[in-house]
Amino acid sequence: MLEQVFRSLRQAQSRLAQETRAQKDAALRKVMEAIAQAQESIRAANEIDQAQAKQAGMSEALLDRLRLDEKRIAGIRDSIATVIDLPDPTGIVRSGWTLANGLVVEQVTMPLGVAAIIYESRPDVTVDAFSLAYKAGCSILLRGASSAVHSNRALVKAIKDGLKTGGGVVDALALADGGHDEVAEILAARGGIDVLIPRGGKHLIRSVVENAKVPVIETGAGNCHIYVEPDADMQMALAIIENAKVQKPGACNAVETLLVKEPAAHLLMPLLAARLAGTVELRCDKRSKEAIGIPPEGLNLKDAVEEDWETEYLDYILAVKVVDSFDQALEHINRYGTHHSEAIVTNNLQHAQKFCQQVDAACVYVNASTRFTDGGQFGFGAELGISTQKFHARGPMGLDALTTYRFRITGSGQTRPN
Amino acid sequence: MLEQVFRSLRQAQSRLAQETRAQKDAALRKVMEAIAQAQESIRAANEIDQAQAKQAGMSEALLDRLRLDEKRIAGIRDSIATVIDLPDPTGIVRSGWTLANGLVVEQVTMPLGVAAIIYESRPDVTVDAFSLAYKAGCSILLRGASSAVHSNRALVKAIKDGLKTGGGVVDALALADGGHDEVAEILAARGGIDVLIPRGGKHLIRSVVENAKVPVIETGAGNCHIYVEPDADMQMALAIIENAKVQKPGACNAVETLLVKEPAAHLLMPLLAARLAGTVELRCDKRSKEAIGIPPEGLNLKDAVEEDWETEYLDYILAVKVVDSFDQALEHINRYGTHHSEAIVTNNLQHAQKFCQQVDAACVYVNASTRFTDGGQFGFGAELGISTQKFHARGPMGLDALTTYRFRITGSGQTRPN
Repeated sequence: MLEQVFRSLRQAQSRLAQETRAQKDAALRKVMEAIAQAQESIRAANEIDQAQAKQAGMSEALLDRLRLDEKRIAGIRDSIATVIDLPDPTGIVRSGWTLANGLVVEQVTMPLGVAAIIYESRPDVTVDAFSLAYKAGCSILLRGASSAVHSNRALVKAIKDGLKTGGGVVDALALADGGHDEVAEILAARGGIDVLIPRGGKHLIRSVVENAKVPVIETGAGNCHIYVEPDADMQMALAIIENAKVQKPGACNAVETLLVKEPAAHLLMPLLAARLAGTVELRCDKRSKEAIGIPPEGLNLKDAVEEDWETEYLDYILAVKVVDSFDQALEHINRYGTHHSEAIVTNNLQHAQKFCQQVDAACVYVNASTRFTDGGQFGFGAELGISTQKFHARGPMGLDALTTYRFRITGSGQTRPN
Repeated sequence: MLEQVFRSLRQAQSRLAQETRAQKDAALRKVMEAIAQAQESIRAANEIDQAQAKQAGMSEALLDRLRLDEKRIAGIRDSIATVIDLPDPTGIVRSGWTLANGLVVEQVTMPLGVAAIIYESRPDVTVDAFSLAYKAGCSILLRGASSAVHSNRALVKAIKDGLKTGGGVVDALALADGGHDEVAEILAARGGIDVLIPRGGKHLIRSVVENAKVPVIETGAGNCHIYVEPDADMQMALAIIENAKVQKPGACNAVETLLVKEPAAHLLMPLLAARLAGTVELRCDKRSKEAIGIPPEGLNLKDAVEEDWETEYLDYILAVKVVDSFDQALEHINRYGTHHSEAIVTNNLQHAQKFCQQVDAACVYVNASTRFTDGGQFGFGAELGISTQKFHARGPMGLDALTTYRFRITGSGQTRPN
């Protein structure tokens, strides 16, 4: 039963909301120190998780996500340091004006309240989510994967030790590491939780979005496109496509479909095929396949089918389609895209502008890799996830996603006339 | 079946999103003209609704809300004029920065998409909601009360006529005036509707919030407080309390409970009792009752019970309680309040600041009537409702509530290093 946990998080949040930036930063600095001091016990706990996961047959990719080595722990501390350096997102007067009767109306940012995050095997998310929440004045309930439970417990202990030393609000975080019924409790906790962020695979996110009674921010799915125009710098296009596909194919901001406008296909495709041969499988429509000409040695080439346009491979696979016009590219993207990250490679200014205005996605790119859609890359220190919805927060979610606002109205006795 | 309507609204929204401010304003100006021209047919339609409602035994208060007389129609046109004068809320670069690698990241506002509003008898909401949505580049589905169906049809016809004349996007609004199953369809329209705003009584809002699968903005319930401190200007306090209670008791921003800190009760209560006698029923705790002394003639005085602290009377009734400290007032408000509008009357600067920071409400007032919580009063032209949730939009909702943002990232070939 999490009822007591919800209450404790709410009380802690009330106290945390009254802390100054200096107090919150000082506490976060002590958390950094405590994580450094607890490094050995964190790694020992992580090794238990890894051993158990290996025994349970976890894939190497997932095992890698679970791993906390020295470098990763240093990365966790760096990301707390970045969050400390960021300005306090609360108490900002976002706008303000004076009414004709002299009333001063100000829109002032404030913490959203109690957040919750349900995530999978990566234990670094535990610390990222906590540090963002704490800086934003929010308490947070952490529901990690059972496979990472020893790591998460060790991290949460270190965080709480740091908060204690730093005079912080120790109850501003809680780990929900009980049975699966706790997830149902979290989803139903109207009034207890102000925002719930599911972070992980498609299945997890779908299930949360469909069943939650609390406000949810949908994250994740990225069927991302790169659209190349004939007047683009073809070397630039090649570098962007390769980077967006190969640098981390399992990431949601990796490209899945390439659209090429004629006559660029006959320039680009042979070069691309040579570049990706042996690494990336191409699933080509008829025209892009023809444009390759004689396939280079080692190229894995298949015919694209309708399903390919809809698929987020998260793998070394790229679908390719030739389009006849800008509008056809736009139509394809708005039909098959998941509102995540979409890129155009072009030197046509009007098309760049039109692309940015008419593609419905959290992040629209001109002449850059889609792989930059990331809180860390954007300078947010860490991220809570990447929102693919339009409500409340969109794209990489940093501190701002954990704030709301109030209107502060200051008068000198004003009353409303009839 | 609304499926075709959802699709048409989505297509219209895509077109509307590409209109410039000048185009949208020009179309709205023609809508104003069309409403003026259609005045007689709108009033005739409204008279049918009124006659049927009267026959069905509708209360005078509700009949008044349903009424569209010349003055109200002029008011509707005025509020369109105000919306025209407001700046376009889309295309605003809310923030922007350049990364170390030269990528330019900009956060740009854009229309939220397709909105829907479910509301009760007031037909002026039809036009207010439409004009805000149109200006924000959103299409809107209007689900009014069946009692107002003739009025709403006449208004929607006039709006569409105006849009046609003005070269606007005629399909950017639709009226859902079919059977009750349409409401269920609206609640379930994930992907079809981007935000749903229920506007009306407690029962309507609760039912929508609990059953919707689409994002909802909760509006409405206002158990508002005024807290008076001993160093307040007592004449100011009296004027504010009277205004907040009497000027429109049925409004959600009317005050329901007065908290008075001793020794102010003995100053304030006899004056208040004299002022409200014959108009407002007082439900007093023991100490505030004693503070009145000998009740003035005509005073309707009752003993407050626990239930009074929780009740939004929406009537000429005021609960009164004496508190011993600022903290006790704060605790009472945060316990019984509905996060709507809360006021302090004081001359103590520290308490004013603390009140604004620690009361969890959409609008916090210092020395002013709670009745100002209103989009029109705030200068928003009209309002979609008053949000009492912290997610996405809070307080009076104008144009901003109908926007989201995208990140626009402009590069010159940047790729992400390993």
